[in-house]
Amino acid sequence: MTQLSPTAALIIIGNEILSGRTHDTNGKYIAEKLTAQGIRLREIRVVPDVKDIIIKTVNELKARETYVFTTGGIGPTHDDITADSIAEAFGVENTLNEDARQMLINYYGSETDLNEGRLKMAKVPVGASLISNPVSGAPGFIMGNVYTMAGVPRICQAMMDNVASMLTTGPKIYSASISCSLGESRIAHDLEEIQSRYAEIEIGSYPHYRANNVGLSIVLRGTDRALLEKSAGEVASMIHKLGGEPGGIEYSG
Amino acid sequence: MTQLSPTAALIIIGNEILSGRTHDTNGKYIAEKLTAQGIRLREIRVVPDVKDIIIKTVNELKARETYVFTTGGIGPTHDDITADSIAEAFGVENTLNEDARQMLINYYGSETDLNEGRLKMAKVPVGASLISNPVSGAPGFIMGNVYTMAGVPRICQAMMDNVASMLTTGPKIYSASISCSLGESRIAHDLEEIQSRYAEIEIGSYPHYRANNVGLSIVLRGTDRALLEKSAGEVASMIHKLGGEPGGIEYSG
Repeated sequence: MTQLSPTAALIIIGNEILSGRTHDTNGKYIAEKLTAQGIRLREIRVVPDVKDIIIKTVNELKARETYVFTTGGIGPTHDDITADSIAEAFGVENTLNEDARQMLINYYGSETDLNEGRLKMAKVPVGASLISNPVSGAPGFIMGNVYTMAGVPRICQAMMDNVASMLTTGPKIYSASISCSLGESRIAHDLEEIQSRYAEIEIGSYPHYRANNVGLSIVLRGTDRALLEKSAGEVASMIHKLGGEPGGIEYSG
Repeated sequence: MTQLSPTAALIIIGNEILSGRTHDTNGKYIAEKLTAQGIRLREIRVVPDVKDIIIKTVNELKARETYVFTTGGIGPTHDDITADSIAEAFGVENTLNEDARQMLINYYGSETDLNEGRLKMAKVPVGASLISNPVSGAPGFIMGNVYTMAGVPRICQAMMDNVASMLTTGPKIYSASISCSLGESRIAHDLEEIQSRYAEIEIGSYPHYRANNVGLSIVLRGTDRALLEKSAGEVASMIHKLGGEPGGIEYSG
């Protein structure tokens, strides 16, 4: 029997993404990390710095997925409302955490350096455990199945690296990618026929249109490596049959 | 009285984003475009190529926002299920559209070139109007308040440019950005005090930690230009008062 994959959702908290000012890069980093561990990321939501929306989104997704990750909104300023929101989603207080305070003292060098803003970053929901922050001291935290991390990419990625080893992994997800220069419409019928015979393999077709260069990548994904190789071989044969030149099959995972 | 801004949500449809294979760039493009027109993007959701999830997401967001945009899943292959899903969300059929068929004939050169795959791209929900595609022929479509566009960035962006002029614009959203090298914790208290006096201006604080370079951008946004300039001036004074060197105030919008 096939072992089920753990699932995840990512909540990206930040007006700056929704206004187009900032280009999110954490999503791709976290997606790759989860995929590498056999965890299926099923949804990403970018939401504004609005407490009610954050709470509603966290509650909906934590009930549905194995893991929920959040990025953004854990700094010291007034627009950083994630810790408060997560606490409220879990029905607990957001209070000063002694371990978090100690992490900040260690980072800043002395207790007297902890001004009001810095102390805010030592507040986490009651019952949460901490995620260390090697870049700027202030920790993220884990509350139930919700992992709250910073929005600054360097910090977010370091936190994700820290928590990755704590997650339950799923069966390894392998992928195979085959390029060709045939149009998508040309291969659609035969590709669907292959997909219909490999229910456990997810087959996607991704065209690109760059200047003077139209091409297509067909990507196959699945946890059964032998089945993946068999289906990828069929895709390569199909491309050849339809008059295309399949590139080599690139495997990963 | 302040005129209300139209709102929007964006649904990015595609397993390739959730697996981390592809880095989405359409979100930022659409976000900037909407912001420039005074339309507030309130949420972005990345969802997989799963019909039930697409339908549920479309129904939830189209009831809540002025506009919903979708990207991805309108090609000819089996994993392109967006048109079917939108039709089902609106309770109509997804059928061959004569104008769309004509667009494809014009693009490919003759009717005999319309194979089964290409004809699939001429199917749109009954009642939809079309969004032209200057890159690869196959149109997007508008159904009610839902704007369905391609996932390939060049095509998506061209479609977004095409529909932008059809949208109801809101009051212009101006922004002001001020950089300094103070830490966030240092300015948190005073910045909150400024925010508390300018309810109509949204003030965000965005630190960055690059190699040997810690810095902070404070971004103010609002539709009242005079109020924006006044509040931005106060932020610059605050930075100066706290011992920082405010960079010049950069306005946009």
